Amino acid sequence: MRNIAVALLIALLPYPAQAQKSTAPTPAQVVQEVRDYRMDNEDRIVRELSEFLAIPNIASDTPNIQRNAAHLVEMLEARGIETHLLPISGRGPVVFGKLLSPEAKRTVIFYAHYDGQPVDPAAWTDGKPFEPVLRDAAIEAGGKRIPFPENSAQHRAVYNDNWRIYARSASDDKSPIVALLAAIDALRAKKIPLAVNLKVILEGEEEAGSPNLQRTLELHKNLLGGDLLITGDGPVHQSGRPLVFFGNRGETGIDVTVYGPVRALHSGHYGNWAPNPAMELSRLLAAMKDADGRVLIEGYYDDVAPLGDLEKKALAEMPANDADLERELGIAKPEGGGKKLVELLTQPSLNIRGLRSAYVGDQAQNVVPDRAEASLDARLVRGEDPQQKFDQIALFIRKQGYWVIDREPTMEERRTYPLIAKVINQGGYRASRTPMDLPVSKALVQVVQAATGGTAVIAPTLGGTVPTYIFEDLGLPWIGVPIVNYDNHQHSSDENLRLGHLWRGMEIYGAILAGLNW
Amino acid sequence: MRNIAVALLIALLPYPAQAQKSTAPTPAQVVQEVRDYRMDNEDRIVRELSEFLAIPNIASDTPNIQRNAAHLVEMLEARGIETHLLPISGRGPVVFGKLLSPEAKRTVIFYAHYDGQPVDPAAWTDGKPFEPVLRDAAIEAGGKRIPFPENSAQHRAVYNDNWRIYARSASDDKSPIVALLAAIDALRAKKIPLAVNLKVILEGEEEAGSPNLQRTLELHKNLLGGDLLITGDGPVHQSGRPLVFFGNRGETGIDVTVYGPVRALHSGHYGNWAPNPAMELSRLLAAMKDADGRVLIEGYYDDVAPLGDLEKKALAEMPANDADLERELGIAKPEGGGKKLVELLTQPSLNIRGLRSAYVGDQAQNVVPDRAEASLDARLVRGEDPQQKFDQIALFIRKQGYWVIDREPTMEERRTYPLIAKVINQGGYRASRTPMDLPVSKALVQVVQAATGGTAVIAPTLGGTVPTYIFEDLGLPWIGVPIVNYDNHQHSSDENLRLGHLWRGMEIYGAILAGLNW
Repeated sequence: MRNIAVALLIALLPYPAQAQKSTAPTPAQVVQEVRDYRMDNEDRIVRELSEFLAIPNIASDTPNIQRNAAHLVEMLEARGIETHLLPISGRGPVVFGKLLSPEAKRTVIFYAHYDGQPVDPAAWTDGKPFEPVLRDAAIEAGGKRIPFPENSAQHRAVYNDNWRIYARSASDDKSPIVALLAAIDALRAKKIPLAVNLKVILEGEEEAGSPNLQRTLELHKNLLGGDLLITGDGPVHQSGRPLVFFGNRGETGIDVTVYGPVRALHSGHYGNWAPNPAMELSRLLAAMKDADGRVLIEGYYDDVAPLGDLEKKALAEMPANDADLERELGIAKPEGGGKKLVELLTQPSLNIRGLRSAYVGDQAQNVVPDRAEASLDARLVRGEDPQQKFDQIALFIRKQGYWVIDREPTMEERRTYPLIAKVINQGGYRASRTPMDLPVSKALVQVVQAATGGTAVIAPTLGGTVPTYIFEDLGLPWIGVPIVNYDNHQHSSDENLRLGHLWRGMEIYGAILAGLNW
Repeated sequence: MRNIAVALLIALLPYPAQAQKSTAPTPAQVVQEVRDYRMDNEDRIVRELSEFLAIPNIASDTPNIQRNAAHLVEMLEARGIETHLLPISGRGPVVFGKLLSPEAKRTVIFYAHYDGQPVDPAAWTDGKPFEPVLRDAAIEAGGKRIPFPENSAQHRAVYNDNWRIYARSASDDKSPIVALLAAIDALRAKKIPLAVNLKVILEGEEEAGSPNLQRTLELHKNLLGGDLLITGDGPVHQSGRPLVFFGNRGETGIDVTVYGPVRALHSGHYGNWAPNPAMELSRLLAAMKDADGRVLIEGYYDDVAPLGDLEKKALAEMPANDADLERELGIAKPEGGGKKLVELLTQPSLNIRGLRSAYVGDQAQNVVPDRAEASLDARLVRGEDPQQKFDQIALFIRKQGYWVIDREPTMEERRTYPLIAKVINQGGYRASRTPMDLPVSKALVQVVQAATGGTAVIAPTLGGTVPTYIFEDLGLPWIGVPIVNYDNHQHSSDENLRLGHLWRGMEIYGAILAGLNW
């Protein structure tokens, strides 16, 4: 860290207004300046990322997650960013930072998280998820370990775009933080002023479900005034093209247990007399969707907020990569009656994530099981309420003739009701979508497209679930601008970052900081 | 074992003919003598059973199943029974024994099995299925663990009829073996001669489907001459009354696996696009039966052989205990559209014995699973062929639009067929039924009714499956005389034996050995 702090001293010196370029550079010009800066500083940028990755960052590992936060404070303060820790008892704090720009009228908040998914070192090729390794290509493509080059008096270190850094959080989600800070360094070095005030919210327990984020942000609402929140979490589009997304689905989890006889019975002595809960559950689940995957539960699609014209247009323009996915995943015919994946993600889903009743295969016992369980998840879209979704599903089960309860049935209930279902609401949260026709939305797309030669994929929503409703509740429009490669092994072993994506990310963030105006 | 061997030395001494009672005792007298003997020897009988239960007996666990066989040889030879092991490569042998009685003209073969169903120790209350536990009542009735009492110089151990021994095979099927041997001990001690020559066939892979029994018995056909085979497998009637049965259902096992994408997918990014195999499986299973439990597979009931008049009369006379069972088992409405359980058992069944796809409950992951599995069993009645039953079911699956295979699908198949099912025939065997009007059938019913005060239930068939077709093929009429309590958790966790049933079983077997004549 000390090296970085020293190296940045020059950048920190406030540069006089007259030193600034007379007219604001275009995004394409900013990209070029950031690129020039980066080519001279690749070794330093990579070193900053590697040092950060070397600090273990599982949310529940309190000493280490707090070391990450302390390291982040140094990194932010080295850029002159005013930093506050918003503490969470026993966990990593929210690291909040603020960098005012004298002439800016808007404030952009950048969100990312510094914790990572749990690791199983044995499953990693190099065995040590917190000792970053450089390879000359992806492991799948035969990438070999190589040393990290460094600048010297005689040589400038050159990092190839296709090289990859392997470590936990190399992509999810430490790289976007480093890309943002390196972009700030580049703009400073090139004397390009920030067009916006910048705030950062860096969370330390996103991979643990963000249980304290909303409460913590509400406690410190006074710090959080802003006009737009940008989240750097997530990968770019599967096509490899940059991505800007305006929404994500919400979710609610539902556990259903259906009951047979009080104990598993011999299937010979009782089979075709004792009701079979696995058959009842099958019948119940089968009634929920038609063969095309359309949900048959009453009102299931009623609350879906319709897409606007801009969203529809964006959907139509998204790359058609369904056929590639079908080939890769071995799918002959997707659900959805012919609709594209990206269209289907704008609708609520109902998914069976697990089934269990007695035993199968070699463990199978000749019984009529006493119960059968299903775990369901419903992904929600804008307009839908998680509790209401749960209620719709519970009501549907009731209408199929079930006595619906939220605990084990009593003997009296078993004797009274032929069909009994325990239906448990595992909770969840709603979707969030920022309208694409807000001035800020249009302005952001314009900057990113200008910075990427018009190649960015603009998505009205992602299929996954991120707690962005928290920002919406704070009155902040939010937009996702991820930068890392989609084949990054996020959440799994051998997580990695392709360096070219880090460089492109710096350029995009630099263009936004220098050019976002609305 | 040594203790038993020593204790039995006296019994083994051949007693002179003049010592025998001058007139054959009535079955009721034999019952009283066996009871007297038992009351003095309860601790020894229970100890012999416990030691036997302590040897793990899963058919596929070769070292242990062979330890069971070796132990059985000791138990039989301690009674002077001439014993042969009929070997099966890599499995437990058939233990064959012969005890000739000088004046007998008929030979009765006793069949039981010494292997047990697979166990899931975590599902057992005491966690250790092969460490027998004594309780003062059934677990469901609040039974507490108690030590095993033993006779001492001053005290005779007394085992209450309602006490239960918990262990795998406590009821299915080690107890009948111990009851038979204890009955022989009792007759010897009371100087009551055997009215029949006795042979025993004790199998070590009945719960694995008896794949080698027929071949093994045919190889050793010379040993197997006899006039009647009695099987001790199965529980008594649910009314608690003794049972004599003349038939049993056959069975065939079918494993069905349905496929989704090649790997489990994020349910947010792919949910309602990637086909869900758990939903497909639910739909497939739900199509197999109507809400009354009637199988909708074409031709499913076509081959059922009709019942004769004696069988119909016996069915009509069987106790009407369906209401009791419904109360005990917590069933509001059985399958079968109002038919009695005993009637339904004369029809083929189709049962889901297990379901599995990804994870449920706390283990649930937010995925579209890559596969869903069901294990089915079909119970067959007289007239039905297992292979034909399997073919009917496989054809039904094909007619639901599935590409049916017997191995994992290739990538090309996944890309070609929207619905793919791996359907595995686990094999099975046909049902069997001995005519109730044979002289031996009538004689056996007479002895058992005399020994039980006319309380025995006479059943044309059981719902369960025993490989009695093998005896039928050997030209042996066979009859079932089970002894264990029907609420024994057979095939499941917490399998148990109620001691009163062991005592009654000894008495019935004693009465048969001493009094069967035709």
